[in-house]
Amino acid sequence: MEDCVFCKIIKGEIPSDKVYEDEEILAFKDINPAAPIHILVIPKKHIPSLVELEQGDEEIIGKIYRIINKIAKEQGIDNKGFRVIVNCGKDGGQEVNHLHFHLLGGKQLGEKIV
Amino acid sequence: MEDCVFCKIIKGEIPSDKVYEDEEILAFKDINPAAPIHILVIPKKHIPSLVELEQGDEEIIGKIYRIINKIAKEQGIDNKGFRVIVNCGKDGGQEVNHLHFHLLGGKQLGEKIV
Repeated sequence: MEDCVFCKIIKGEIPSDKVYEDEEILAFKDINPAAPIHILVIPKKHIPSLVELEQGDEEIIGKIYRIINKIAKEQGIDNKGFRVIVNCGKDGGQEVNHLHFHLLGGKQLGEKIV
Repeated sequence: MEDCVFCKIIKGEIPSDKVYEDEEILAFKDINPAAPIHILVIPKKHIPSLVELEQGDEEIIGKIYRIINKIAKEQGIDNKGFRVIVNCGKDGGQEVNHLHFHLLGGKQLGEKIV
C-alpha cells in the first residue's frame, strides 16, 4: 500500500484532477486518456484487484456504479452512452494494483471490445 | 421486455450455454466470443442499461461481481487475469438493451482498452 500510486493520490501525496470524492470513493481524470472522457473511479480502501474482493466489499461495488452514473450525468454522457472497464491481473492488462473502474465516453467507442 | 433476447434466454425460450444460474443472476457463453473465454453475466431483472439502475439494484451489482469472481475461478482465469466490460447506450456500443457484464479472458487482452 505504501508504494501504491492510487493510495498516494487518495492521500493527496500525488496530485490528481478530481471529479468526485466522498469517504469511500474517489474519481479522477486518467492522465493518459483513451477517450475524450476517461475517468478512474476507485474505492479508497486498498483492494489490489477484482479477485481480491472480500465479502464486505460488494456494497462498495454497487456504490461505485451509482457514482459512475452520477459522474456520467455530470459529464453529459448519460444519454449518449459510455463504457465501464475493469482490468484484472496480467491477462486483463491491469496496470495499477489498486482496483479501479475506467469510465470512458465522449465519442462512439469501438465495437470491438477486446 | 417481451422482445428482449436476454429475457427470452432467462425464460428458456432461446437456448444458451449456461455457466451459472441462481434466482437473480444468469451467466452464459457469448455466441460471438471476442476472446477464448467470453461470458455474459446478467441480472434476471430486466434493467435496460446501466443508467437505468434503481436504488435497490446496487446490491445485485455487488453480487454480480462476486459471481464474476466465482466464474473466473471455475474457468481457471482468476490468477492469469481477465477483463470486465459494461457497454451503455449508443456511444458505449451496447447491443442488447438488458444490462450485461462481459467477462473476457483466456489470452493476453490488448493494452488498448478502447
